[in-house]
Amino acid sequence: MSTPTTADRSIDRRHALGFTPGLLAAAAAMDLPANAQPGAAAKTAVTPVARTVTDAECEQLFKQVSNWGVWGPNDQRGTLNHIGPQEITAAAATVKLGQTVSLSRNFPTRAGIDNTSPAAHFMTQTGDNPCTADGCVVMSGDFISINVHGMAASHMDALCHMFKYGKSYNGYPAAEVTSSGAPRNNIMTNAEGVVGRGVLLDPARARGIPYYEPHQLITVADLEAAEKAHKVTVGKGDLVMIRTGRDARAKAVPGQTELRLAGLDPQVVAWLHARKASVLGGDGVHDSFPFNQLNKSWPNPVHVCLLASAGMQLLDNLSLDPVAAKCAEANRWAFQLTLAPLRIERGTGSTLNPIAVF
Amino acid sequence: MSTPTTADRSIDRRHALGFTPGLLAAAAAMDLPANAQPGAAAKTAVTPVARTVTDAECEQLFKQVSNWGVWGPNDQRGTLNHIGPQEITAAAATVKLGQTVSLSRNFPTRAGIDNTSPAAHFMTQTGDNPCTADGCVVMSGDFISINVHGMAASHMDALCHMFKYGKSYNGYPAAEVTSSGAPRNNIMTNAEGVVGRGVLLDPARARGIPYYEPHQLITVADLEAAEKAHKVTVGKGDLVMIRTGRDARAKAVPGQTELRLAGLDPQVVAWLHARKASVLGGDGVHDSFPFNQLNKSWPNPVHVCLLASAGMQLLDNLSLDPVAAKCAEANRWAFQLTLAPLRIERGTGSTLNPIAVF
Amino acid sequence: MSTPTTADRSIDRRHALGFTPGLLAAAAAMDLPANAQPGAAAKTAVTPVARTVTDAECEQLFKQVSNWGVWGPNDQRGTLNHIGPQEITAAAATVKLGQTVSLSRNFPTRAGIDNTSPAAHFMTQTGDNPCTADGCVVMSGDFISINVHGMAASHMDALCHMFKYGKSYNGYPAAEVTSSGAPRNNIMTNAEGVVGRGVLLDPARARGIPYYEPHQLITVADLEAAEKAHKVTVGKGDLVMIRTGRDARAKAVPGQTELRLAGLDPQVVAWLHARKASVLGGDGVHDSFPFNQLNKSWPNPVHVCLLASAGMQLLDNLSLDPVAAKCAEANRWAFQLTLAPLRIERGTGSTLNPIAVF
Amino acid sequence: MSTPTTADRSIDRRHALGFTPGLLAAAAAMDLPANAQPGAAAKTAVTPVARTVTDAECEQLFKQVSNWGVWGPNDQRGTLNHIGPQEITAAAATVKLGQTVSLSRNFPTRAGIDNTSPAAHFMTQTGDNPCTADGCVVMSGDFISINVHGMAASHMDALCHMFKYGKSYNGYPAAEVTSSGAPRNNIMTNAEGVVGRGVLLDPARARGIPYYEPHQLITVADLEAAEKAHKVTVGKGDLVMIRTGRDARAKAVPGQTELRLAGLDPQVVAWLHARKASVLGGDGVHDSFPFNQLNKSWPNPVHVCLLASAGMQLLDNLSLDPVAAKCAEANRWAFQLTLAPLRIERGTGSTLNPIAVF
Repeated sequence: MSTPTTADRSIDRRHALGFTPGLLAAAAAMDLPANAQPGAAAKTAVTPVARTVTDAECEQLFKQVSNWGVWGPNDQRGTLNHIGPQEITAAAATVKLGQTVSLSRNFPTRAGIDNTSPAAHFMTQTGDNPCTADGCVVMSGDFISINVHGMAASHMDALCHMFKYGKSYNGYPAAEVTSSGAPRNNIMTNAEGVVGRGVLLDPARARGIPYYEPHQLITVADLEAAEKAHKVTVGKGDLVMIRTGRDARAKAVPGQTELRLAGLDPQVVAWLHARKASVLGGDGVHDSFPFNQLNKSWPNPVHVCLLASAGMQLLDNLSLDPVAAKCAEANRWAFQLTLAPLRIERGTGSTLNPIAVF
Repeated sequence: MSTPTTADRSIDRRHALGFTPGLLAAAAAMDLPANAQPGAAAKTAVTPVARTVTDAECEQLFKQVSNWGVWGPNDQRGTLNHIGPQEITAAAATVKLGQTVSLSRNFPTRAGIDNTSPAAHFMTQTGDNPCTADGCVVMSGDFISINVHGMAASHMDALCHMFKYGKSYNGYPAAEVTSSGAPRNNIMTNAEGVVGRGVLLDPARARGIPYYEPHQLITVADLEAAEKAHKVTVGKGDLVMIRTGRDARAKAVPGQTELRLAGLDPQVVAWLHARKASVLGGDGVHDSFPFNQLNKSWPNPVHVCLLASAGMQLLDNLSLDPVAAKCAEANRWAFQLTLAPLRIERGTGSTLNPIAVF
Repeated sequence: MSTPTTADRSIDRRHALGFTPGLLAAAAAMDLPANAQPGAAAKTAVTPVARTVTDAECEQLFKQVSNWGVWGPNDQRGTLNHIGPQEITAAAATVKLGQTVSLSRNFPTRAGIDNTSPAAHFMTQTGDNPCTADGCVVMSGDFISINVHGMAASHMDALCHMFKYGKSYNGYPAAEVTSSGAPRNNIMTNAEGVVGRGVLLDPARARGIPYYEPHQLITVADLEAAEKAHKVTVGKGDLVMIRTGRDARAKAVPGQTELRLAGLDPQVVAWLHARKASVLGGDGVHDSFPFNQLNKSWPNPVHVCLLASAGMQLLDNLSLDPVAAKCAEANRWAFQLTLAPLRIERGTGSTLNPIAVF
Repeated sequence: MSTPTTADRSIDRRHALGFTPGLLAAAAAMDLPANAQPGAAAKTAVTPVARTVTDAECEQLFKQVSNWGVWGPNDQRGTLNHIGPQEITAAAATVKLGQTVSLSRNFPTRAGIDNTSPAAHFMTQTGDNPCTADGCVVMSGDFISINVHGMAASHMDALCHMFKYGKSYNGYPAAEVTSSGAPRNNIMTNAEGVVGRGVLLDPARARGIPYYEPHQLITVADLEAAEKAHKVTVGKGDLVMIRTGRDARAKAVPGQTELRLAGLDPQVVAWLHARKASVLGGDGVHDSFPFNQLNKSWPNPVHVCLLASAGMQLLDNLSLDPVAAKCAEANRWAFQLTLAPLRIERGTGSTLNPIAVF
C-alpha cells in the first residue's frame, strides 16, 4: 500500500561496492587527531592525515603528472609505455632463487566490513553425479561471480575506471563508457600480460613500525627512506608495490566495525611520475579510506591523478605481507613480477593473481 | 494445470556446461569415416579417430601413469612436483626478446556452439554518475560471472575436477566434494602461481596441414615429429601446450552448428607421464569432443588419466595461434610461461590468462 | 600478440539477450512468402506478414494510442489506471471453480535457440552438510540469476523498457535510465501487484488451426472472431492474453535452428487502446520475430507503441497452452488474474508467475 | 608463500546466507534476561525466550504434527492439501474493497546486518544505445541474482529446505538433494500458484505493544488473544501470517550491529497443525534468531517441525506492516491471498511477492 519510492539509488549502489559518499561526509565529521603520534612509531614521526590538502594542490598535481599526448593522441597504454623489451629482459634476469610468491588475496566470498557485496562461488557439479547409460563422466565444477572493484578483492584498475573533468586518460570522454562497457582505456590494454621488475617498498618496516594507522599518510620521504633501507631504487618501468601493513593491522586490531585504511600522501603521485613507474600496487586502495578525509572535492586524488592524468594503472587490495617476508628473507626488494588480468573486452578492470618470481 | 515434472535434470545441467551425455550417444551413432583422409593432409597420414580403444587399454593407461603415493600419501601437487627452483630459474633464463604473448581467449560473454552458458559482464557504474553534495567520485565499474569449466573459457582444471573409481588424485574420495566445494586437490594448489618452461608443440605445422579435423587424433608419433621439426624436446617440469588448430579450423569452416573438436590419442597420456611434464594445455579439451567417440565407458580418457591418476593439471580452450605464430617467427618453441589462476578456496579450477615471455 | 580490439560490443550484447540487429537484416533479406497459405488454415485465410507497413502507419499509431498526460503529467501507471476497485471486485466475482492455472514457463536454465543466455540455478547447500559441534542446521538452499528480458523467460516489461523519440511513456527522458537503473516508469509501479479480469483470446482455435506460422500476423479481425467464438468481449481494465500457439508449434516442428515467432498486426495496438485494456500478454513477444520483418525503422511497433505511447505494460513469453485448455474445458475465456512481479527498485521488468483463478 | 589452507568453509558459507552456527554459540553464551519485562508491554506479560525447551519437547512436537503418509506415500503437497476448490472460492468471495496490498519487501540489493550477501541488480542496457544502420531498437534491460533463502529476502521455503533424521517431509532422503537440485518436495509443488484465505495475526497490536523484542516468544495464548481481538478464527486451509513487528522495531531501535529477531514458541507448531493451516508466513523467520537460543540440538524447531514433519511451507522475511495497517483500517483480518513463486525446477524455494486482495 505504501507508494514505491523512486529516490535515486546510485548512492546505495556505490555503497554496496565500497565507495560511499555517505561515509565521506561521516569521515569529514570524524574527530580525527590533528597530530596523532601512535606509541608504536616512537622511532620516527609519521605524517598525520590532517595536513592541509587544497583543491589547488590537487589540480596542480593533476597537471604536473599528465601524460596526455606524450605517446600520441591515440595512446591507451599510458605508463606501460615505460616497459619495453629491455625492461622485460632485465626483470627476468633478476630470477635467482626459483621461488614464486603470490601478491593476491583469496577470492573474497565472505562478507565483512571491507566486503559488503561478496564474490560468489557455487558448485555446479560435485562428486554425487552417478554414471548413466549414456556414459560415465563423473566430475566436479563451479561458478564464480565478482564485482571487479571494491575494497576486498585483489584487482587491477584499468585507465577508464576514473574520470576527471569528464574525461579519462588521454582525453577520452566519460560519456563513451556506457552500459555496453568502455570502448577505450579498458583492461584489454593488458591483454598480453604485464611483465617487469616489481619493487616492494615497506616504509613501515623501514621505520620500525608494524603498520601505518588509518589516519597516517605515507609520504615521499617515507618512500625514499624505504628505498635507502632496502637498497633499491625505483626506476623506469618498475611496478611499484607499497605496503601499508593493512593485513597486519587487521590482525592486531580485531573487532573493527568500520573500514578505515591508511593511504599515500598525494605528493607520492608526483614522485611516481618522476621515477617513470609503470604500475602502482598496494595492500589498501592508495588513497586513505574513507575517501575524502583530505579534501572534499578530491576524495581520492591518488586514484584520479594516476589513472586519469598520468595513465598509470593501479592494483588494489593486494596481499603484500607474504612478499614482504620473502624480500626480507632474501634481502632483496626487487623481483620479476607478472600481471595476468583476464581478457575482459570493454572491461574496467580485472581480478587477478600477481606472481612474483625471486 | 500441467503436473510439474520432477524428472532428473542433471543431464540438462551438464549439457549447459558443455558436457553432454546426450551428445555422447549421438556421437556414438555418427557415421564417422573409418579412414578419413582430408585433402589438406596429403603430406602425411593422420590417424583417424576410429581406431579401437578398449576398456582394457584405458584401464591399463590409468594404472601406468599413476602418481598416487609417489610424493607421499598427502600430496596434492601431483606433477607440479616436477617443477623446482632449478626449473623455474632455467625458464627465466630463456627470456631473450623481452616480449609477452597471452595464451588466453577473451572472456567468453557471447553465446555460441561452444558456449551455451555464456559468462556475464555487466557495468555497475558508468560515466553517467554526477558529483553529489557529498563528494565527487566519478568512476566506472563492472561485474563478471562465469562457469569455470566448459568448452569456451580458457581455464585450468584442478585435480579434483575428475573422479574415477570414486576417487580423485592420490585417492581422495569423490564424496568429499560437496556443495561447500572441494577440500583437497583444489585450485589452491596453484595459489602461488606456476612458473616454468612452456613448450608449444604444433604437429599440424610439422605435418604441413592447417589444423586437425575433429575425427583425427594427435598421436605420440605426431608429437615426436613436431619435436624434431621444432628442435625442442619435452622434459622434466615442462608445461606442454599442444595445438590442434581449433581456431584456424573455426575460421576456415564457418557456419558449424555442432561443436566437434580434435583430440589426443590416449597413448599421449603415457608419453607425457614418461617425459615428466608438469601441466598439459591445449586449444581444445585434449579429448576428442563430443566425448565418448573412442570408448563408451571412458568418454574422456585423457582428462581422467591425467587428472585423477597422474595428478597432472590441464589448461582447456587456450588460444594457441598467437603463441604459435610467435614461436615460428622467433624459431624457438620454448619460453617462460606463468600461470596465475585465481585463489578460489575449495575451487575446482579457475579462468586465467597464461602469459608466455620470449 | 594480437592487438585487442575495441570494436563496439553493443550489438553482440543485444544478441545475447535475443534482440539482434544482425538478425533483423537477415530477416529483411529472407524470401518470405508474400501470400503464404498454410495447408492447416484451409478454414479461413490468415493475413501474411508481407503486407505493407509504412513508417507513416507506425508514426500514426504512436500518436493515436498516446496516453501521455491523460492521467496527469506525473503519471507512471499508464493503462493500469483502467483498473480500479470495481474491476478488481468484479474479477474476484468470476471465481466459480476454485481452480488455479499458471501462465508462466519454467525458470529457463537450459540453453536453446530462444535462450542464448540461460538463467542460472545453483545449489548453495544440499543434504550433505553434517551437524557440527555448534548446532545441527541441516538444510538445502540455492541461488538463481536471470536476465529479466529476452525470448525465453516469462516476464513483465515495465514502461521504461522501450524508448521512442528519446522518451518513455509520458515523456520521461531515456537519458535518465542509467547504470543505476530507471528512476521512473519502472517495475515498482506494480509493487502492490496487479489483479483484474484476465481474458484469453485464442484466434488459432477460433480459426481451426493449431497455431500461427511465424510469417503470419494476428489481425484485429482475427481477435474479434475469437471474441465471438469465445463469447467474451474485451473491456475496460482487462488483462488481455493472446495465444499464437508458439509452444504447440515448437512441438509440431522440432529441430528448428533459428528463432522465428508469429506476432500481432500493428493495428491491434489501436484496438487494445480503444478497448481500454490494461495489460497485454502473449506466448511470444507480440511483435513478429525476428523483429523488423514489417518495417525497418520500426522493428517492433507493438512493443514501442504500447509501452512508450499508450503506457501499457507487456507480458512476454507466457505459457498459454494450459490456460487455453482450461478455458476450453470450462467454456469460459475470462478469469481472475494476478500479476505479482518482484519489487525490484529501479528495475525495467521482472520475471513472474501469473496465476489465473477460475 | 603461505600454504593455502583447506579448512572447511561450510561454516563461512552458511554465515553468508545468514544461518550461522558460529552465531548460535554466541547466542547461547548471551546473558539473556530470564524474565525480561519491556516497559512498553505493561498491558500484558509476554513470555520470555528463556523458558525451558527440551530435546524431548521438540521430538514430541515433531511426532505430533507429522503428516507423513496422511495424503499417501508419494505426497509432496503436505498441508496444501487443506486447500481445495471450496477454500479457493470462499477466499475470492471475501474480496469487497477491490484493493491490493503486497506482503513482500523490496528486492534486497543493499548490504546490512540481515543481508550479508546482497541480491544483485545490474543494467544490461540503458537509454544510451543509439539506433544503428540495421535498425532502431532502443531499450533498457537488467539482470538480477539472489540467494533464495537468507534473512533479508521475502521468500517461500519449499519442503526440501529442511531435513531431520536424514529426511524431508514424507520420508524422502536428504541425500537425494544434490548439486543438481531437489528431485522432490521442491518449489514446483506450487507451480500453479497458491490461492486461499490469508489471515493476519498481529499479537503485538492485540497486546498494545508496538513489536516483540528479540528475546520474547509469541505463544499460543498470544495468538488466540489476537484472534479474539481481530474477530477472526484460523481454520482449514488458511495461510496464516504472524506479525512480530520486526520492521517497526528496526525503525525504533536504529544502529543495531547484530541481527536478532523475535520468534514463535515451538508449541505454535502444534496449534497450526491442529487448525489445519496450509502455509505459515512471518516478518521474521518464525524461529528466534540467532537460532539455538532455545535448545542447542534443535536450533530452529519451528522450521524443522513444520517443513519436515507437517509438510507446511513457510514464507520468511515478509513485509507485514502495510497489510496490518490495511487490516486495521478495514477492520477485517482475512483476505484473499495469492502466492506466485517462480517455477524453478528442482528448486528449494523462491523469492516472491505475495498479494493480498481486500
